[in-house]
Parts: sequence; structure tokens; C-alpha cells
Amino acid sequence: MKKNIIINKNNFFIFSLFECGCFSMATITTTIIIIICLLPATQAKYMFYNTTMAIDPHKINVHLVPHSHDDVGWLKTIDQYYAGANNSIRGACVQNVLDSVISALLDDPNRRFIYVEMAFFQRWWRQQSDTLKAEVRDLVNSGRLEFINGGMCMHDEATPHYIDMIDQTTLGHRFIKHEFNQKPRVGWQIDPFGHSAVQAYLLGAELGFDSLFFARIDYQDRAKRKTDKSLEVVWQGSQSLGSSSQIFTGIFPVHYSPPDGFTFEVNDVSAPIQDDLTLFDYNVKERVDDFVIAALAQANVTRTNHIMWTMGEDFRYQYALSWFRQMDKFIHYVNMDGRVNALYSTPSIYTEAKHTANEKWPLKTGDFFPYADRENAYWTGYFTSRPALKGYVRMMSGYLLAARQLEFFKGRSNLGPNTDALADALAIAQHHDAITGTEREHVAADYAMRLSIGYTECPLLNISYCPPTEANLLNGKSLVVVAYNPIGWKRVEIIRIPVSSQGLIVQDSDGREIESQLIPISSASLSTRNYHLKGNLGGSATDSDKYWLAFSASVPPLGFSTYIVSSSRKTGSRSVISKWSLSERDSNNTIEVGQGNLKLLYTADEGKLTSYINSRNQVTAFAGQSYGYYSGYNGTDRVNQASGAYIFRPNGTFPVKSDSQVPLTVVRGPLLDEIHQQLSSWLHQVTRVYKEKEHAEVEFTIGPIPVDDGVGKEVIARIATSLRSNRTFYTDSNGRDFIKRVRDYRSDWDLQVHQPIAGNYYPINLGIYLEDEDIELSVLVDRAVGATSLVDGQIEVMLHRRLLNDDARGVGEALNEEVCVHNTCKGLMIQGKFYLRIDPRGEGAKWRRAFGQEIYSPLLLAFAEQDGNNWMGTHVAAFSAIDPAYSLPENIAIITLQELENGKVLLRLAHLYETGEDRDYSVMEKVELKKLFPGKKISKVTEMNLSANQERSEMEKKRLEWRVEGASEERRGLRGGAFDPTRLEVELAPSEIRTFEVEFDYIRMFGS
Amino acid sequence: MKKNIIINKNNFFIFSLFECGCFSMATITTTIIIIICLLPATQAKYMFYNTTMAIDPHKINVHLVPHSHDDVGWLKTIDQYYAGANNSIRGACVQNVLDSVISALLDDPNRRFIYVEMAFFQRWWRQQSDTLKAEVRDLVNSGRLEFINGGMCMHDEATPHYIDMIDQTTLGHRFIKHEFNQKPRVGWQIDPFGHSAVQAYLLGAELGFDSLFFARIDYQDRAKRKTDKSLEVVWQGSQSLGSSSQIFTGIFPVHYSPPDGFTFEVNDVSAPIQDDLTLFDYNVKERVDDFVIAALAQANVTRTNHIMWTMGEDFRYQYALSWFRQMDKFIHYVNMDGRVNALYSTPSIYTEAKHTANEKWPLKTGDFFPYADRENAYWTGYFTSRPALKGYVRMMSGYLLAARQLEFFKGRSNLGPNTDALADALAIAQHHDAITGTEREHVAADYAMRLSIGYTECPLLNISYCPPTEANLLNGKSLVVVAYNPIGWKRVEIIRIPVSSQGLIVQDSDGREIESQLIPISSASLSTRNYHLKGNLGGSATDSDKYWLAFSASVPPLGFSTYIVSSSRKTGSRSVISKWSLSERDSNNTIEVGQGNLKLLYTADEGKLTSYINSRNQVTAFAGQSYGYYSGYNGTDRVNQASGAYIFRPNGTFPVKSDSQVPLTVVRGPLLDEIHQQLSSWLHQVTRVYKEKEHAEVEFTIGPIPVDDGVGKEVIARIATSLRSNRTFYTDSNGRDFIKRVRDYRSDWDLQVHQPIAGNYYPINLGIYLEDEDIELSVLVDRAVGATSLVDGQIEVMLHRRLLNDDARGVGEALNEEVCVHNTCKGLMIQGKFYLRIDPRGEGAKWRRAFGQEIYSPLLLAFAEQDGNNWMGTHVAAFSAIDPAYSLPENIAIITLQELENGKVLLRLAHLYETGEDRDYSVMEKVELKKLFPGKKISKVTEMNLSANQERSEMEKKRLEWRVEGASEERRGLRGGAFDPTRLEVELAPSEIRTFEVEFDYIRMFGS
Repeated sequence: MKKNIIINKNNFFIFSLFECGCFSMATITTTIIIIICLLPATQAKYMFYNTTMAIDPHKINVHLVPHSHDDVGWLKTIDQYYAGANNSIRGACVQNVLDSVISALLDDPNRRFIYVEMAFFQRWWRQQSDTLKAEVRDLVNSGRLEFINGGMCMHDEATPHYIDMIDQTTLGHRFIKHEFNQKPRVGWQIDPFGHSAVQAYLLGAELGFDSLFFARIDYQDRAKRKTDKSLEVVWQGSQSLGSSSQIFTGIFPVHYSPPDGFTFEVNDVSAPIQDDLTLFDYNVKERVDDFVIAALAQANVTRTNHIMWTMGEDFRYQYALSWFRQMDKFIHYVNMDGRVNALYSTPSIYTEAKHTANEKWPLKTGDFFPYADRENAYWTGYFTSRPALKGYVRMMSGYLLAARQLEFFKGRSNLGPNTDALADALAIAQHHDAITGTEREHVAADYAMRLSIGYTECPLLNISYCPPTEANLLNGKSLVVVAYNPIGWKRVEIIRIPVSSQGLIVQDSDGREIESQLIPISSASLSTRNYHLKGNLGGSATDSDKYWLAFSASVPPLGFSTYIVSSSRKTGSRSVISKWSLSERDSNNTIEVGQGNLKLLYTADEGKLTSYINSRNQVTAFAGQSYGYYSGYNGTDRVNQASGAYIFRPNGTFPVKSDSQVPLTVVRGPLLDEIHQQLSSWLHQVTRVYKEKEHAEVEFTIGPIPVDDGVGKEVIARIATSLRSNRTFYTDSNGRDFIKRVRDYRSDWDLQVHQPIAGNYYPINLGIYLEDEDIELSVLVDRAVGATSLVDGQIEVMLHRRLLNDDARGVGEALNEEVCVHNTCKGLMIQGKFYLRIDPRGEGAKWRRAFGQEIYSPLLLAFAEQDGNNWMGTHVAAFSAIDPAYSLPENIAIITLQELENGKVLLRLAHLYETGEDRDYSVMEKVELKKLFPGKKISKVTEMNLSANQERSEMEKKRLEWRVEGASEERRGLRGGAFDPTRLEVELAPSEIRTFEVEFDYIRMFGS
Repeated sequence: MKKNIIINKNNFFIFSLFECGCFSMATITTTIIIIICLLPATQAKYMFYNTTMAIDPHKINVHLVPHSHDDVGWLKTIDQYYAGANNSIRGACVQNVLDSVISALLDDPNRRFIYVEMAFFQRWWRQQSDTLKAEVRDLVNSGRLEFINGGMCMHDEATPHYIDMIDQTTLGHRFIKHEFNQKPRVGWQIDPFGHSAVQAYLLGAELGFDSLFFARIDYQDRAKRKTDKSLEVVWQGSQSLGSSSQIFTGIFPVHYSPPDGFTFEVNDVSAPIQDDLTLFDYNVKERVDDFVIAALAQANVTRTNHIMWTMGEDFRYQYALSWFRQMDKFIHYVNMDGRVNALYSTPSIYTEAKHTANEKWPLKTGDFFPYADRENAYWTGYFTSRPALKGYVRMMSGYLLAARQLEFFKGRSNLGPNTDALADALAIAQHHDAITGTEREHVAADYAMRLSIGYTECPLLNISYCPPTEANLLNGKSLVVVAYNPIGWKRVEIIRIPVSSQGLIVQDSDGREIESQLIPISSASLSTRNYHLKGNLGGSATDSDKYWLAFSASVPPLGFSTYIVSSSRKTGSRSVISKWSLSERDSNNTIEVGQGNLKLLYTADEGKLTSYINSRNQVTAFAGQSYGYYSGYNGTDRVNQASGAYIFRPNGTFPVKSDSQVPLTVVRGPLLDEIHQQLSSWLHQVTRVYKEKEHAEVEFTIGPIPVDDGVGKEVIARIATSLRSNRTFYTDSNGRDFIKRVRDYRSDWDLQVHQPIAGNYYPINLGIYLEDEDIELSVLVDRAVGATSLVDGQIEVMLHRRLLNDDARGVGEALNEEVCVHNTCKGLMIQGKFYLRIDPRGEGAKWRRAFGQEIYSPLLLAFAEQDGNNWMGTHVAAFSAIDPAYSLPENIAIITLQELENGKVLLRLAHLYETGEDRDYSVMEKVELKKLFPGKKISKVTEMNLSANQERSEMEKKRLEWRVEGASEERRGLRGGAFDPTRLEVELAPSEIRTFEVEFDYIRMFGS
């Protein structure tokens, strides 16, 4: 063989003048000279590689799992990633991945691949021929192509609301069910930056998943788990549902790429196996040794004789054969070698093998937040990054829920218009580089555009501008306001609409005049509005005075009410113009606001909040409120870590100070009081106390955050009380379960604290609260943000971030959002709200749950003009979809009411409370479907799993039971009883969400 | 459609707090609210793209020619490129190309692809299954996969010998013929750095090619041709063969890549066509416009309505579908648009279309050297780069020719050992980044290793070390020396072998003692030898005194003679020890050397050559000889252009000077005289005058070239005479035709001279000469080098180059060859020879042609020891393969005599002279095959085309005739008559090479 010829490659040829040719005499015969030339090495032939899958119980089994991690948007938009456009940013083309993977799978029946992101797969699928579709169906049905996770995207776990997580997963799962009749069995959250309890139990166990896998975990936690061999655990995400919600969970020892030296994308540098003896560089032995060494290293931190190699990376397999060719060879030669056993596998095969091993696994409760990938690198910045996008997504989420209800009432049109485009846009916005704010600026714009295309109408209402409501109501015209309530219980709320004139009256649908209040729109607010109008419409609003018209609307469950606003010549019934005052004070040098039970007290001199008093339940508490900011660390790489889109690394804490003392402005009226404060040139706040509500509403307008000093800033609001909260606070998991947090502490390992601020931040979607022996303080939010309690009795919420350095995690852009109008750019301003309330201990949950649901599902308003008084005569003025005598219990929410393509109706009911959370509401509850659908004949009700791709009973049958270390007495958790088809009642235990497909004999409530 | 929705992407979503949801009332009916959501865009479906090939005579036809340019070695070795190994240097894997191209072709019958480099294709082919092979045969036979060029590599055109070009092409063509029964029809030399006349007529017309295409042409020439629309021409490469050797030749307007914006490799940045209305970024119109604009631009510089787009680049199509997917769409949409007509095509379809157009084309004669791609960037350095490799390749080329003859005599073994490995190694060494010296150092080592594996035995004879000949010949042993002559005429030559003792006698095979001369090996030579021995064998030679033993060998045509060297006690018959003298001089202060007709005169003081005197033909001429060097320009990029592997950019001319005056050493003896000169510490020269020869042989040892001053150097030898050569000189084309060169002049355009030195360099393989009215001066070389005549009467040859900067043409390494022994590295030393002779005008060709052939095919030596005198009794001592009464005419060479795998014998006979070159030899000549193969019965002789893949008559029948502009009376050129099967005589006209397959009734001359 060539390899045995000893030749000094570098030198032998260099001296080149040959005195003579030379040939060997060694075999000269008596008759003729024989020339000795090298025997050509064994003629290479077509090689058959034996890659038949077989598990060897006596060896380490290396499960090779070919995969491609395809972000549905990040550096490029989803469509650019799909089509391979904009490759100057990053070469990536998912169409290549799917085309070439399918081709490689069709070439060899032993190969396997998993695919994850249905948003991409759907795009691809639509473009394929029927012939190829049939072949792909075969691949899927034979398990060679397996859908894993199976949502539209791999959603983030910190910043999405659980309803969005369910919706986007359902979209993907139903697509898979519809096209392939398959149900994904494995959760595959390999990239998200921390992992939530809701993911484990709701988007895991409740989907019917057998297991969940991910890569990212705190570096300290990982180190300990490697030592303990506890990277694989049984995770129990819900305390209410107990062991019935457990899921086997595997954390990768390094990341979701293959071990070093085993990446085989086109142009990758790993050495390919070279087994053709006619070519140079034969290296089978060497590469097999590499493989065995890597396998043994991993086996060393893993229980059982099964290990998984994630054979892929971001957007890999653009030419799949380049991977499969090498894996074919590795499996063949490694198995010939015999020290370990290699096989093509999938996470479900791996899970099955783990289960069969009958091992005991450590129990994990709680979640995996926050995530740090090294010292000083806590990924807690993205909890708040791009607050405008986060707010927009949340608004659209609530809107979609309501729109689907209305679509159901009207009767769905499969050919459109329908809610599908919005559902699709909202689904991909849950991606872990979408709502997280960790995508590039142009990609964020793409997500938002998709949402807006779904939403389409009246996009500018968000800046108090909605032309129909501001039209001049003279000439006998009046404004019709329709308010829809998507919640199952009746609501009475103050509605505010912008109007351009005084002298208005508001009437309900019965013609009764109702009390209303006019609140002048502040000049700060007006200038902001005009700025954005220029940017959006290219013009400006009219210059006439503008007011908010506030009135109280009472709306039935799943129904609407209609109000008429018109100008009136009768002085008495006109809306009350609020009183403004700039320097009001009482004898104690105090300003008190609040017309009802709740009063807030401010110091008249400094305008500082000092007391929170609820006269109904006798709560009186010291309460301060302020803003501050962290200066962002200006690093350049992973060692010199900057604060950025992902990472929060503060470099100092500073109060927000106004340049001069600006006294607070008090606005008072019959329905609500407001406190206006210009806290600095770039921070304005309005605090509202409604007569009929017992919480304070704080509306903040922040930005442009100044960065002229070259320092990025992250703005926080702080609420301070004297509660002795003992380092403990509670934050929600995706808007659902509240999880206990203890400052500077982790229950799973002995925390080394390097970042005492960033390392205590947690994501919230609903809110945060803390308590002492007497009272509890709750703060609820209108979108995902980061929050913490760094000092006992204090709550801190991060509201906005503007940073000047990239944080070296790949996005390659500083999180420096700007708005440009006529080529002039300034930092992004955001407006948002949080709500705060103080209750006697044990009373807070009621507000957090009920009002939290109302924040998620605000009243939906629509407007029309009427000439004269024709509206009421031609339109239904008030409506409720449910039995007029019925209302949903206040611990139950309809989180899905949607007509499907097949005419069936998807209904999800959620119990809003956890076990033990509330004395009154944490109880088994019933919903009567007959009363929910009056006037319809329910012909069939099928209980489904959470993503509605299989019957719940089928899912339950397949559920794997896992043995848990040291768990002698597990609590299974309470569940509602089986659905009774005769009584048509649904029973829900605390934390339960139940999903049904409901069929009706006739589905239309109204003809169309 | 989405595109019509006006949304300000940057701004609309940024202000995010929504006062309320909003839905339109516009379509509120009397009964229920309708939600307006966006209509989903037309559901995308599987798209059928119409890519049927059709030429439209009324439109510009854009021939899309998908191709991949796969260097058989450059930055990586050929096997590394094939397997995708060593990708850290450059991502490239030819296996991917072939796998994915075949797959894409099988997917769609309209797609086409051309493949060029058989060295890669063969590797791939060996590894395929029979099933796939059958499918590929279908692709080839249906023209969807077309082999273009079809040699093992795309050989260089400056530095290979024409015999090597023929051999490597034959290897590839016969493989294609054998596996696919196809014959390539098009020359595709897209990348070589200049183009030779031999390429056009021999490796073009004589192969049966219809056309030749390439990209690289002098930038000034290209500019003029674009203006003239003369990028496509009829090229007549041979003046002897006239119009019978014409070929249609197309030069690409830019390079061999697609127009800008039409590259579609995975991760390329060109915008893909996006035609899916359900995705964003639909751009069909825009991309079709781009296509049409690019097509019109090219049509503007092209005759006829056919233009070719070379859709590929270096190592592209690693995932072929990514190209074909886009080309499918472009053809479909461009043809729908209708302004131009796009089609999948190949160069042969394109050629056919050009031919059908019946246009007249400009005539091109001569060649396309030298090549400059911009000012100051003459690619004339590579004519000399890596002189050691160039010398090694040339040596192996001569060796293979001889070895194949011997293999034929013995009878070929198809299973080996045979000459195939050497033939393969030599074939790829002709690649335009192999013998050119423009590959990386490690790749050069790979080519050399492959050659050495073919050669295998006695690799160190090149440094005067060959153990059998240096063995102590005491103890009654003697040395047997067998000398084989591969040439068809008898030769008498001085053989030199290294020996370790004096007192030797040399006997011929009849036992006659013959005259011999011992020449001490100089100490300089010994130390060099020991240095390289250490490097190669890890030891050192014995320390005993060493001599060259020279004696005169007389060897019959295609035969061998045997000589016995033994020690003798008889003083009289012993070899004569040469006389050495250091300060000899005659009365004129002159040193004269030469025992025969030729005398050289030197000044005794300075040791300078002054005169050349041939007493036979009365030539007496002033003759000086010296060395100098150019300092290499130290640039960093294309503007600040460095001298490097490709490019020669001198920055000053300097003489080579020794540190002190070293007198010349004269060695005299009965067979030859030698002059030894240490011209500097790194340049040593030996000049030899043989008693029986009329040329001087100059052996130079150059190196390590000093670069401690930070300046690279390019070493030249200069021969100066007083000839009035009038700016004119002649250099050979690939060792065959001599082409007239005029200093600072090009016949095709008005040359702008920026580089008066580099721009006058031409490649030589055989030699260079110049003449005046009386005499001519010829210099012949032993390998490819660059040469010129910068001053009338002077010849300059570049011998060695050592440079410190990369010249920015991709190799990414400075041409700084070093040799390392025991971790100590020094610059490469090279040893070589050139030969010079001065003749009366019109007499030089005889020497250039006959001796040139002998340089190419030196006597091949083999050695054995004998004990006593048993050799002659057991071995054939003298042998000639041809009729003892016959000898080939001295103007005819057997350039191929090779037994093929099928038992047939391939015979190529070459007429060595051009028309008008020599009074006596430029005549029609005959070869009698009966006498060439005595004792064999010739059963059949078939005349073939040059690459022996088809019968010559078949080739002639298919030859396309082209109309030439302004050519009223073309000269067809003389050709030998048709082969007469009865007389078995071959007639050869000047410049003719005729190729035959000869079949014998019994092929073996000797049993084996």
C-alpha cells in the first residue's frame, strides 16, 4: 500500500537535475527487463455501508440524531432564511435543507432526520409536487423523517404568554396531523435561553410528549449536573398537577452541535472519513478512535448506556448528503471496530431506550431561569429587549383570541377573510429570536409587519388617533362605539376614546344618558402623537383641541354593548370636563387622589408617592415609586461582556432625575383621578385611580433614552414598601404559575454570585408579587418584562433598554432602537402600563388572576358614524353569546374558542388558579357547555390533548411512567373528572386546562 | 396582494401601548360583526418551470452553461479537493459536486452540465454503484451530462511538454470512450494563464474538437477585441498545417463566472428569484430585468445572436440544486418575458449554433502569450516557478515514454505492476496549478510524491548517489550498467556514473575495453549531496573519495547496450583520471577548452567566456555568459503588485557577483573538458565541452538564494553575442513549434509597454534562438523556464525564483521554497542544465530538433552487480527492438509506443520539423512499420485522432468548416498520404503527428 512507502514529502523532489534515469535490475530475467512500477492500490469500488439500526444492550449506544436548527427569523427574516435571500448577512437557505434532506432520506432507508419548525416546513410543503409529497409521507410514516416539537417555531420560554405558546404549537401540530396523521412525541427546545415550568408541563406533558430536550442551562448548574450525572431528570413543572405532569428531560452536555470534529456541512473543516485506498489520506482508524473517545467522554457524564449526539447546528444540512455520507461511514466503521455502537436515531428512539433502561432519575421542580452561559453573562436582558415589539405581540395575542370568538359566531370562511394570517404571524412572533427582541432590527420590523397585515385596520389607534372617533360630531352625526368583551364574565370598565370637541353626551343602547368625563390630552402626549403620525401617514393630525372622553361601559360575557356619543346642546347631561391643578395641597402638605376605596397620597413639595390606603379592607402601607436606570457595560467580547440584546450586565445604578423640579399635575373627575408627572425630559408618567377599582394604573412614556454620553441605559421602575419579604418574591411562568424566587439563591446548586443584580432578574408576563406576614404587594404588567426584588419590600421592573454594544451572542447589532421621520432618527419612545395593588395577605391572587385576564383581553372597540339615529334600528345593539342567566366562574377563562377548518369548534377552558393559591377560587370548578352555547345543539364533544392533535384518552394511554430517585410518595395532583357527554359539564381542577373539539348540529348562530 | 399594502416598516409598530383594540365597522351587517382580516395570498402550489431547450433565431439566445471549475490540486491536493478534506484551507469537495450534479440532472431532463477534469471524475466513478453508473451513462448519452476538454486535468499551456499534454488528454479521452463511448468535442481551457499555439492545433483541431474556449487573455487584447467584436475567432495554430488545423475559439468577455448577480452556490449572495406569492420579497420582474440587461450588454460585444453564460466557478455546484433551482426559474420567467431567449446549453450546442449562423470570423495566428490581467501584472513568473518540480516532471515524462516502450516489449500486465500509476501522476502534474509552480508548497509535494511512487526505485540518483554503482568493486565483483535508448536512431553518448574508487576498467558486451575518464566530484557538490542525503535517508553517504566515471556508450535504436565496470590491476587499461588545474593560461592570457571541433575561450584573469569557435563549420563568435537577478517587487495587493508564483514584476536588475575573485578550475580528459566556477556563495557552474559534441553544456547549481535583505530574487542566466537580431527571437510552443517574438510588440494590437522586462518573457520548453544574417544562437533547456531577448544578440533564461510576497492571485503563499533537514530550513537549491550552440544561419534547427529529442529522452540506466563473469552468460547484453538494418529518420520521433489495456498498441510518430525550418529535414518522410516491429505480424493498423478515441477518418468527417474574414486564399498545409495497409508505411509531413492503433497477430517478442 502507498502508506508504507517511506518518502520524505518535503525534500525528496527538490533537487531536480537527474543525471540519468534509473530502473531496477532486481527482477531482470534472462530474457528481458521488467520495469517495477507501483502496484495500483486495490481498485476502489462502490462501498456498501452497513447502517442498519440496532441497539446493543452491552455497549455504549451513540444515538446520532441528524437535525437542523432553523430559526424562524433572527439575522434575516423568516422568508429570507427560507429562500436563501439576503445571504450577505448570513448564508442560510432552509429550502436547501429540506430539499436535500428529503433527497438523502429517499436515497437510503436507514437514514433519519428530525424536523422542528413547521413555519418553514409548511412553506416548503406548499411548493412540492404531489409525487414528492407522497414520498415524504412515506418517510414520515416510516419514522425516517420525524417531526419533533412540531410547533410553527421553537418558541421562547421567558417572554411569550402561555396562550400564544399553546396556539403556535397547535397550529403546527394540527398541520402535521392533517398532512401526515402524526403526533410529535418529543419537546425539542434546544436553543431558548432558559426554560420555563409551563414549557415542561403544559407544552410538554399536556401535549403528550414523552420527553423534552434542550441545550442551554446555567453554566454552574451544568457543571454540577455533569458531576452528578444529573443532566437527565424527570421534571415536574406544575405543583398543582404533581406527578401527572412530569416529563423526562435531557440537557445536552455541551450544546446542540455534534462533538468537536464531527460537523460535516459543505465546507466544514472536520476531517471526513477517507476510506478509499486508491486515494491518499486514508484515515479510518484515526477517525474511529476520535469517535470512540468522544463517546466515552459523554458516557462518563450520562446515566445508562445511551448517549445522544445532536448531529446538526443552525441552518445546517444545506446539502444534507455531505452529513449523511460521513455518518454512514462512521456508523459502518465504528460498529466494525466494536468498542461502541453507533446508530441513526431520533430523540423518540433515544427516549424509548432511556425508558427501557428502567433507571431512576433525579426529580426537578421549578424552572431553569435565569440562564448564564458564563460569569457576568446573565441572559436576563432579553426579558425586556424591544418592549414595543413585546407589547405589540401581546396586544395581538389578546386581539386574536377575541377575533376568533367573533369569527366563530359569524361562521368561519376557510377561503378568507379569516384569522389565519394573524394566527400565523403571531405564531412565528413567539420564536426565541422574535418576541425576545434578540433579532436584528429589520427582522423585528418583518414580524411586526406580518402582525399588522393580520390586524390591518385602524393601526394608529395606539397613539390616540382613530379618525372616526375624532370626526366632528356636528351636523347631526354621532359616533357609535361598540365594545366587545371576550371574557366569560360581565365587565364594567372605563372606556377612553379620543375626541376633538367638548359638549358631548354618551348614551347606552337603551338611550339612557350615562356619566362621562373629558380629560384634556397633555401637550407632551400630543407632540408624541404628531411625531409618529408624520412617520406613519406622512401628515399630521388636525390641530383642534383633543380630549379623552371617558365613560363607564358595562359589557356582558362574550358579548358586546353599544354606546352613542353625540354633541348635545343640553348643558346638564354633557360630559364633565376634568379639573386640572398644578399646586394643590391639603393641610398636611399632602395631595390625596382617589374617589373610591383606594387613595394614594403624595407629598405636595416633591410630588412623591408616600402612602397607599384602601379604606375597604383597611390596608394602609408606605408606598414609594421611582425610576432609575442601569448603565450598560460597554464590552466587546465574551470576556469583556457588554450588556446587549440578550445579556444584562449593569455597570452602575442611577436615579432618573428631572432637570428641574416639576410639580405634579392632578386631574380630577367623577370617574377617575390622574397624576401627571414629567420625571425627566424623556420620562413621563400618568398615575390613574379609578373610582370603582382598587388598583393604581401607571402609564409610562419612556424615551428617547439619552445616549449622547456614549453609555447605553436600561430603565427600571421601582415600587418600594416596608414589607419584610425576606429575600423572597414570586414571578409568573409565561403568565400562568407563580414560582417562588429567593434572592441570590438557587435550589439546585450552591450559587456563586458574580452579578447580584442581573443574576436575580426573572421574566414576567403577568406580574410579580411579594408578601410578609400581613400584606402582599402585586405588580401586573401589560407585556413581557424582566423583574426582580433586590431589596426586601421592593419590586423592580425593567421597562426599556437602549444599548450601544453588541453582546457577542451572534446578533451582531447593538440594541439601539431608533425611529426615523423624514430621515431624522431618534431613540425609540415606548408607552406602557403597569398596575399595582396592595392586599391583605392571601387576598392578592383574586386580583392578579381576574384583572390579569382582563389586561390580556381588553374590551375590543369598534366605531361607526351614524346620521341621525338610524343605527339602533338596523343593528343589534347588545349581545351575549352565552345564556343570559349564565356567566363563567371567575376562576375560569375561555382561552380558545375557534372554529376549525373542518367546522368543528376548538374550546379550551383554563382554571386560572393554582392549588392553594386562593381560599375561594383554588377549587374544583364546573363549566356548563349547554349554557355556553345556547341555541346550538351540541352533537359531540371530544376531549383532546392540549394541541388538539389527538384524543386525550389516546395520549394518556401512551404516557411513559418514569422512576424518580427518592420519591417514595408522589402526589399525582388533582384533575377534573372525565367529561360527561350527557350533562355536558366540564370539571376543572386548579391549574387545569382542558381542550375539546365540539361539534354542533347547526353551527351558525346567525345566518350570513 | 401583500405588496400593495402601504406600511411603513420602520415605524409603525414602535409605539406600542394600545388604548384599545379596533376592528372595522365598514362591513357590519344588520346582524353581526364581520372581522376583516387579510386574505391570504394565493395559495402557493408546486410550480412547473418550462425549461425546454429551444433556440429562437429572432432573439438573443443566452446559452446557460452550468459548469464547475475543479482544479486537480492548487491550495489543496487533488485528493483533498475530491474528498473535501483540509477544508480549513478552502472549502471544496468535488465529491459533493458530482454527487449533487448527477442528482439534479436526474431530477429534470432539461438540465445540462459539463464536466471537465477526468482525474476527479474517475475517482468518483470508481465509487459508484452499478445502478447509478447506468443512470449516469444515460445522462451522458442523452447529452445532459457532457464531457468537455476531457483530459485528466485542464493542463497548463506554457510549461508542459506537448507529449505530456497529449498523454494526459489521451488518458482522459480513452476513459470517456471506454466507459461512455463518447468523444469530447470542445476544448475548455478556461483558466490557464495564456494560451499556446500547440493547444489550438494539436490539443484542439487534431483531437477533433470543434471549438476551444477560454477566459484569460491580455487585458489590452481583450479591450480591443471587445471593441472589434473579435473575442471569437478562428485560430490557426500551426503554420505548417495551415487551415487544416484551424479551430473556432471563443474568449469570454469577463471571466468564466456568470455575470454579476447570477451566482447561486449555497450561501452565495446573489438574490434568488422569489416567485412564491405567499412569501415576502417577490422579485420576478426585477430579476428578469437584471438578466435581460446583462444579456444585452454581452450581445453588444458578440457576433451573431448567441451568447454564452458560464454558469459556474471554482469548485462550485457543491449543492447543484441551489444553481439549477434558480436557472430553472430564470429560463422560465425570462422566456415568459420574451425580450431574450434563455436555454440550458453546452459549449458544443453553442458551437453548433455559432456555426449555423454562417458568420465570418477573424483569423488568429500565433498564440496568446504572455498574459497580463492588468498593468504591471504579467503572468510570466510561473514560466520558471518551482524549477525543481518542473525538472522532476520533465524527467518523469521522458522516463514514462521509455518505460512504456519497455513495458510493450515485455508485455503489459493490466493488473500491475505497470506504468499506469506513473502515467496518472504525470497527467495531473500537467495541471495549470501543478507544473506551473502556482500551487501551495504542500500540494507541490503531493504531486512529487505521486510521481515518485510511479518511479519508485533509486530516487536519489539525481544527487549523484546510487548505492549499487558506488559499492566497492573489490572481491571479484563488478558493476553491470545497462543503457536503454528510447529514440529511434542510434546514439553515442558519454555516460557518467558515480563511483568510489579509482583503477576501474569499462568493457562493452563483447568484452572490449573502452576508454573512460574519472572526474573527481567537487567538494561543493559533495556537501550538497550529503545535505540532501541527510534529509532523505536520515544518514550520510560514505566518506570515501568519489568520482564520476565517464565513458562513451553506443546504444542502438529502441534498444540497449551493456557495459561492465570492474577494478583492474592492469595500469594501462584503467580509466584516465582527469587533469585539474586552477591557474592555467596560455600565452594570450587565455584558457581554451575543447578536445574536438568546439573550443571555448576564457580570459585567464577573470575567467570570463569570450569566444565560441567551431573549427568544423568555421563559426567564430564573441560569446559572453553571466548570471544576474531581478529583485522582486514587494507588493501586497493587485494595485501594489508583488512578484510572486504567477507574476513576474522586477524591481531592479543586478549582476551575480562573488565576494572575492575565484579563478576558474579546468578539468581536462580524453572524453570531455570541464570549467568549474563558483560564481557566488550560492551559484556554482560547470561548463562541459565533449570531444565528440559541438555544443556547450552548462550545469548550474543555484541556491539558497539569499533573502536576508528582505528582498526576493529571480535568478537569470544571460548569453551575450554580437548578433544583430533586430528585436526578434524565437521560442518554442510546448517544445514543438517555434514562434517568432518581437520585443515590445504584439501583432494583434498596439502594445502599451508598462513592463519592458516582464512583458517580453515567453515560456520555453525546448529552447530559444535568435539569428542575424550570418549565424544563429540557440539555447536549449532541460525543463520549462521563462526566456527572452531583451537586447539584440542576447538570450536571457530565468532559472530560479525565491520570493517573499504572495502575488494576490489566490495561492496565498509566497513562493519561498525551503528544504528542511533536522528542523533547519534553508532556501531551495536547484541544479539544472542548459545547452548552447552557435551555428551558421539555417543550420541550427538540426541540433535543436535532434538534440532536443535526446534531452527529452536521455539514455535510461540500470545497474546490477555481478560475481565473477556470470552476467553475460545469462542475460541479453545488447538489443534493438527494430530491424537491425533500420533506423528512424532523424526528423521522426516515436512519441508514443504503448501497449493498451486491450492488447492493441498505440503508436504515435511525430515529424520533428516545421515547414521551411530545415533544408534537409523539413520534408515529407516515411516510416516503415514492418521494420519498426520486426518479428511481429501486424494484423491491423488503424489511424486515430491524436487522443486515440476515434478513427481519424471519423474525426475528419465531423470537422466543422468556418468562414474566415478576408481569407481569400488559405493554405491548407501539407499532410502525409493515407496510410497504406499493404505497404505498412506511414508518411509524415512537417509538423505532423500521426496516431495509430496497431494490432499484432502475436504480440510478445519474448515469452515471460
